[in-house]
Amino acid sequence: MRDVCVIGLGLIGGSLLRAAAASGRTVWGATVSEVDADAASRGGYDVTTDAEAALQRAASADAIVVIAVPLPAVENLLRQVAQHASHCLLTDVVSVKGPMLDAVRRRAPYTRYVGGHPMAGTSRSGWLAGDTMLFRDAAWVVGVEEETDLTAWAEVTRLVLDVGAHAVPLPADSHDETVARISHLPHLFAAILASVGAQGGPLAMSLAAGSFRDGTRVAGSSPDLVRAMTEGNRDALLPIVDDALGRLGAARGSLASTGGLAATINAGHEGALALEATRDAARSGVRIDLTAADAREGLVALGERGGRITGLDGAVALGEVS
Amino acid sequence: MRDVCVIGLGLIGGSLLRAAAASGRTVWGATVSEVDADAASRGGYDVTTDAEAALQRAASADAIVVIAVPLPAVENLLRQVAQHASHCLLTDVVSVKGPMLDAVRRRAPYTRYVGGHPMAGTSRSGWLAGDTMLFRDAAWVVGVEEETDLTAWAEVTRLVLDVGAHAVPLPADSHDETVARISHLPHLFAAILASVGAQGGPLAMSLAAGSFRDGTRVAGSSPDLVRAMTEGNRDALLPIVDDALGRLGAARGSLASTGGLAATINAGHEGALALEATRDAARSGVRIDLTAADAREGLVALGERGGRITGLDGAVALGEVS
Repeated sequence: MRDVCVIGLGLIGGSLLRAAAASGRTVWGATVSEVDADAASRGGYDVTTDAEAALQRAASADAIVVIAVPLPAVENLLRQVAQHASHCLLTDVVSVKGPMLDAVRRRAPYTRYVGGHPMAGTSRSGWLAGDTMLFRDAAWVVGVEEETDLTAWAEVTRLVLDVGAHAVPLPADSHDETVARISHLPHLFAAILASVGAQGGPLAMSLAAGSFRDGTRVAGSSPDLVRAMTEGNRDALLPIVDDALGRLGAARGSLASTGGLAATINAGHEGALALEATRDAARSGVRIDLTAADAREGLVALGERGGRITGLDGAVALGEVS
Repeated sequence: MRDVCVIGLGLIGGSLLRAAAASGRTVWGATVSEVDADAASRGGYDVTTDAEAALQRAASADAIVVIAVPLPAVENLLRQVAQHASHCLLTDVVSVKGPMLDAVRRRAPYTRYVGGHPMAGTSRSGWLAGDTMLFRDAAWVVGVEEETDLTAWAEVTRLVLDVGAHAVPLPADSHDETVARISHLPHLFAAILASVGAQGGPLAMSLAAGSFRDGTRVAGSSPDLVRAMTEGNRDALLPIVDDALGRLGAARGSLASTGGLAATINAGHEGALALEATRDAARSGVRIDLTAADAREGLVALGERGGRITGLDGAVALGEVS
C-alpha cells in the first residue's frame, strides 16, 4: 500500500489523514494553519506547516499526494507539487473538478493526476472537526477522463475504499453539473432561507422549527469554503440556478393567479420519493476489467447510472448498480 | 381541568390527544379516517368517526373543542361546531390563523374562539406518526385579537403548557407573516430543490449527501397537507416568495457578472448565527397580569419580541423574553 501525503488538514483532509492511518498506511501531512498542525501533532500525527518538506518526502517515498486545500489555494500549491513531487501520483478532494483539471493541466502536467471528491461533510471545519469515520459508505467521485491512466485510477480508488467510501467513476463535467444540483444550489437556498428568516427578527427565530432548521443548517458552514465551492463551479451552477429561479417564479405566478401550488409541491414530493427509491433500490453486482479496451466507458456508464465501485480484485473493479 | 375534544387525529391532533391524556385530562376525539380511529381505539383512546357525537359530548361536558383538521376541511367542521357545541371554548391547531379567524367569524360566531398553532411536526402524518412528547418545549402560538377573552386565552394556554409546549401570544397577521417566512417558504424551497435534484436522475440521487438531504427533508411530507398550509396562507406568502425570488435573482446576477456570491452567502451565514444567538440568548422572566387593562398589549409585545409564556399563576402569565 502506497504512503499518503495530505496537504491541507481541514475537515476533509484531516479526516482522510486519520482514516488512511487507521487503514494501516503510512501517512503525513501539511497545513498552513499552525493551530491545526499543533492539534494534529498532539493527536500523534506526523504533520508540519512546511508543505515543501512534506512534498519532498512524498517524492522520495513515491507516495500518493492528496490536495485538500480550498480551490483558491490550489494554483499555488500545484506550483509546489510541480517543483518537488512532479512524478507522484496526485489526487485531490476539491469540490469542483473541471477547474481543478484545468489547473493541473496548466501547472503540474507531469504528474499522474486522478481527481477526487468525497460527498461527505458537516457544517463544521478545521482539523478538530475531522472524524476517522466521516467517509463510511459515502460516495467519493474518482475522475475518469480520456487521458486517465486506469492503473493510477485504481490506486486512488484503493485509497478511497480503504477509508470506507465507495468510488463513483465520473468525468469532471458530469461531476460539476451534478454537485451544482445536489450541493451548491442547496447551499445557496440555505443562505437565502436564513436571510429571509433573520429578516423576521426574534419572533421568526423564536417560531422557527424543523423545516427552517433543516433548510438552513448548511448556512452555518464557513462562508469562505461555501464561496470557494460555489464560485469555483460558476459555469455549471448558473444553469442550475436558472432552473431553480424558473421553478420558483412559476410557483409564485401560480400562487398569485390561481392560488394553487400543486405542480410545485407534487413535483417536489415525487423528487423526494425518487431519492428514497434510489436509496432502497435493489443493486446488482458488476465486474469491470480495467485492462479491457472499453474499461473507461464501462466505468463512466456505471457512475452516470448512479452506480458505485465497492471493491477491487486485482485489475477488476467490483461495482454495484441498480 | 377542562375536558378536551379533538376533531382530526393526524400527526398533530393525535399527538395532542395523547399528550392531553398524559397530563391527566379526560379526552376524546373524532376522525374521518377509519384506519386512524381503529388504531387510536386499539391504543386505548376514546375515539369515533362520528364528529357530531364527539361535539355533542363536548357540549354536555363543556369541554374545550380543538379543530385539528386541514384548512380545506375547516368550514364544514365549523358548521357542525356551530350546530352542536356553539358555546364551547374553541381552539385549533391549523397552520394559518387569518383565514381560520375569518372562517370562525363567518361560521361559528357564538363560540369563544382562541386560535392556536404548535410549531412542531415531522414529515410523517396520520395517527401512528403521533407522539406524546411531540410538543415538548415547542413554541405554540395562542392567538390574541382585539376581541379575545383573556380568560379563554388562559384556558387554551393552560392546555398548551400541560402538553409540554410554550405559548407565544400573537395576533393572526403576525403569525401568518412569520410562518410564511420560517415554514411555508422552507417547504417551497424543499420542493424546488427536490425537483431540481430529481432532474439529475440516479447519478444526482447517488451523490446527494447532507446538504441535499437536509434541504429536501420536508418535501417528503404529505403534498395535500403542504398545499393546504401554503395555499391557505397565500396573502402572507406572496411577499415572502417575492423577497426570496429577489435574493435568488440577485445571487444569479452577481454570479454571472462578477462571479461573486459573497453578499448572498455572508447574509445567510449572519442569519444562521442570529438563529443560534436567539437559541442561546439569556432570558429574563416577565409577569403579565391578565386582568390588567393593558394585558393584551403586554402579551402581544412579548410574543413579537420572541418571548414565550412558560407558566400560569392564577390570572398571571409567566413569560420569558431575551
